[in-house]
Amino acid sequence: MTENNSKKAQIGVTGLAVMGANLARNLARNGYTVALHNRSVEKTDALLEAHGSEGDFIRTETLQELVDSLESPRRILVMVKAGQPVDAVIEQLAPLLDKDDIIIDGGNSHFPDTIRRERELAEKGLHFVGVGVSGGEEGALWGPAIMPGGSAKSYESVGPMLEKIAAKAPQDGAPCCAWLSTDGAGHFVKMVHNGIEYADMQVIGEAYDILRSVAGIKPADQAKIFRSWNETELNSYLIEITSQVLEQVDAQTGKPLVDVIVDQAGQKGTGGWTVQAAIDLGTPITGIAESVFARGLSSSNTAAREEAQKELPAGLIATTGVANADEEFVEDVRKALFASKLVAYAQGLDMLQEAADQYGWTYKLDVVASLWRAGCIIRAELLGEIMEAYSGENIPSNMLLAPGFKSLMEDLLPSWRRVVAKATALGIPVPVFSSSLSYYDGLRRDRLPAALIQGQRDYFGAHTYKRIDAEGDYHVMWTEDDRREVNAADVHVH
Amino acid sequence: MTENNSKKAQIGVTGLAVMGANLARNLARNGYTVALHNRSVEKTDALLEAHGSEGDFIRTETLQELVDSLESPRRILVMVKAGQPVDAVIEQLAPLLDKDDIIIDGGNSHFPDTIRRERELAEKGLHFVGVGVSGGEEGALWGPAIMPGGSAKSYESVGPMLEKIAAKAPQDGAPCCAWLSTDGAGHFVKMVHNGIEYADMQVIGEAYDILRSVAGIKPADQAKIFRSWNETELNSYLIEITSQVLEQVDAQTGKPLVDVIVDQAGQKGTGGWTVQAAIDLGTPITGIAESVFARGLSSSNTAAREEAQKELPAGLIATTGVANADEEFVEDVRKALFASKLVAYAQGLDMLQEAADQYGWTYKLDVVASLWRAGCIIRAELLGEIMEAYSGENIPSNMLLAPGFKSLMEDLLPSWRRVVAKATALGIPVPVFSSSLSYYDGLRRDRLPAALIQGQRDYFGAHTYKRIDAEGDYHVMWTEDDRREVNAADVHVH
Repeated sequence: MTENNSKKAQIGVTGLAVMGANLARNLARNGYTVALHNRSVEKTDALLEAHGSEGDFIRTETLQELVDSLESPRRILVMVKAGQPVDAVIEQLAPLLDKDDIIIDGGNSHFPDTIRRERELAEKGLHFVGVGVSGGEEGALWGPAIMPGGSAKSYESVGPMLEKIAAKAPQDGAPCCAWLSTDGAGHFVKMVHNGIEYADMQVIGEAYDILRSVAGIKPADQAKIFRSWNETELNSYLIEITSQVLEQVDAQTGKPLVDVIVDQAGQKGTGGWTVQAAIDLGTPITGIAESVFARGLSSSNTAAREEAQKELPAGLIATTGVANADEEFVEDVRKALFASKLVAYAQGLDMLQEAADQYGWTYKLDVVASLWRAGCIIRAELLGEIMEAYSGENIPSNMLLAPGFKSLMEDLLPSWRRVVAKATALGIPVPVFSSSLSYYDGLRRDRLPAALIQGQRDYFGAHTYKRIDAEGDYHVMWTEDDRREVNAADVHVH
Repeated sequence: MTENNSKKAQIGVTGLAVMGANLARNLARNGYTVALHNRSVEKTDALLEAHGSEGDFIRTETLQELVDSLESPRRILVMVKAGQPVDAVIEQLAPLLDKDDIIIDGGNSHFPDTIRRERELAEKGLHFVGVGVSGGEEGALWGPAIMPGGSAKSYESVGPMLEKIAAKAPQDGAPCCAWLSTDGAGHFVKMVHNGIEYADMQVIGEAYDILRSVAGIKPADQAKIFRSWNETELNSYLIEITSQVLEQVDAQTGKPLVDVIVDQAGQKGTGGWTVQAAIDLGTPITGIAESVFARGLSSSNTAAREEAQKELPAGLIATTGVANADEEFVEDVRKALFASKLVAYAQGLDMLQEAADQYGWTYKLDVVASLWRAGCIIRAELLGEIMEAYSGENIPSNMLLAPGFKSLMEDLLPSWRRVVAKATALGIPVPVFSSSLSYYDGLRRDRLPAALIQGQRDYFGAHTYKRIDAEGDYHVMWTEDDRREVNAADVHVH
């Protein structure tokens, strides 16, 4: 902790709850002088008391002191709860700042808010940088994945600092931080990251449930299986921690911890936002949506769940005749998990591309994938391969169409189908396994029943349809006797 | 057409595109004097020219004339495109009106807009009635289903007229119109109606696809099957028109029409809105979501679809060994369709109940179901049974838990499972069939893998979990050697 009051800080942090505090420590440990501010000064003092010796900090009591302590142009990282609190801090802070100063929002803000804030502050000559930060508390302290949006100019100022404190990819040592695009791009990419995280966790849950219910494999033994899976192409942080959660024994009861946890999963908004944004974009992200809804089913109408457990018939059928030895079955489940996970990624990246097109963002998908290789919750070996698939000139129109993934799917498909068919017969819910498979089969299908739906829509709403063999919009005069087809351009079709 | 300028009209209609024109004619045919207004007077004159003899109309050229032509308190039905045009009309109209006059919005407005408009107009002493109208052009003319929201007082004035022009239920002759609740309730119920409509159409599409792809049944023969299904518990408008679409032969090619229609389904917003609203409510509506996404998959990234058709491996597996004779298989498909449709309704009603709880609306689900029995696109015999299930004192906590539906599911389940397993093996996408089944199995399951997800969330984000055997929120000190459990109330858990 520096006592030299004339020395200016290179960055200020306001909001010293655990994420803010840890990012401040990370910055200081990396050699930056960090000015600290919190609404209640007790938190500032507690941080200095515990960690003040880790680097150069400047203690401030008011926002004015914080602003005065910073070198110009100022960089201020706001780490308060997403939503109204961010606006409140901006409102207090902006009048104290000078042209070209930079406010950085490192919280989980909703990207439309970030777009609005950037626009409002730009009118005042200030920069606003919306930054997605993933990796939880440990990540914030030791190296998170950082997804910054905002003006390219502001990144010249804050980019080097963010890159320095970011996680480094194991493949090439590159920082998991790069300028993505303007205004809300950073928070958008972080949101989709979280959506994929939902799907990643749900497919692990489905695999666990099947192994437990079909093969009777206990949590402690599953911990070993997941650990061994972590040596395969599934290698990832979430698989790693799953094995640790599954091996945890509850001290009170001696049971596996997972058996004493109430099976109602919460959500903090970003998964749902991802689905809502995908609807606006028109992009199908069924895996993420089913994951969000699976959590909702677990926790929303518990009265119905309780009654349904006792009352609803199961109506199981004989399993499919695919007799698997235990090891083969476990391998089938692993492949089903992996295939479903690949689809979730393909859908998430599809959504990112569509958003770039519609919102005018310029990020490239290989860069996005590169940022997720370390530091964040979905970090996985797979991200390196995804990065590669999107590098170079030939960008696949869908991730699954990249050569590497196509041949991978060939290997995974029969297992995937067997597992879904078996779970279907045995009454085990597999919302993401099965939905992802339907998406995959829909994507590769030459004719979808959407043609019939277009016929229905033309019947009841005169919505018209297109023909496979001619330009234009067509309509059948359904209420007339001859039911002739007309070209919508020739007649008044509503 | 009355020429008596001193006679006042009981209702005015502004916006005379087909829906507005047909509602105006419906009102006139039912004995009301209707004042007509359109931005361009040509449309007004065209309507009077073609249909002026059907009843008492008053022609007006300006909004001021429209307002002057109406008895007090005035009722003005606005039939313009949802969104900004509604606000534009309100802005012009409101200054011309007197206290207690009523503006009725009969378009497909988004319910948050309706909530806002009702509040804004209430401040000016005006009533705003947001009315969902379903039934397309024919319904508007001969009797639509009408879902009104707004103040109870305004319904006293407009209710009798709306009930008079509404469809009448075949079961009891009751009008398919009833006051639902305040502000956005009517448009909300209509939105969910449309969401269910998406699912209803998609499950029909999946049944068609399976019958075609697995059993090789041609559209003309399927038309007969759907017609026969319309004599079963599946009896509904959408099944009826499906048979008509499937039997339609393209005059140009001699092929079934469904084979010349481009298989890319469009959407007009309300299905997606339903999903977005469900996310906000935390209610899982997987059937509707998968239907919206199935349309998105068909039409959003057509480049990827084209390439995937050629490139992606199928990886089919042997079918399940469930050898069905043709007739048995068709019956299996019928039951799978019906079960999936029941789940879509259960989810939609769940969402309506949750919305009532969260937004303070007072509609009852039996009333909602009663309004859908005739006039609207999803009208079906089933609605009478749903209405009954929610009548009386014992409201089921989920539609599937009503005694009648529970025993129905018992009959449907084995077929449903066989069809999903078969489609899974054969690579036919069944997003709603399978998603609905996973929802059903999730609902009745005693332990969901959500417990593991809570463990993961506690691991990486200290989100805490609940125990099945004790109150409170718990957390494992995962990064410490002893990995002890702590009560979140006792320690600082972030």
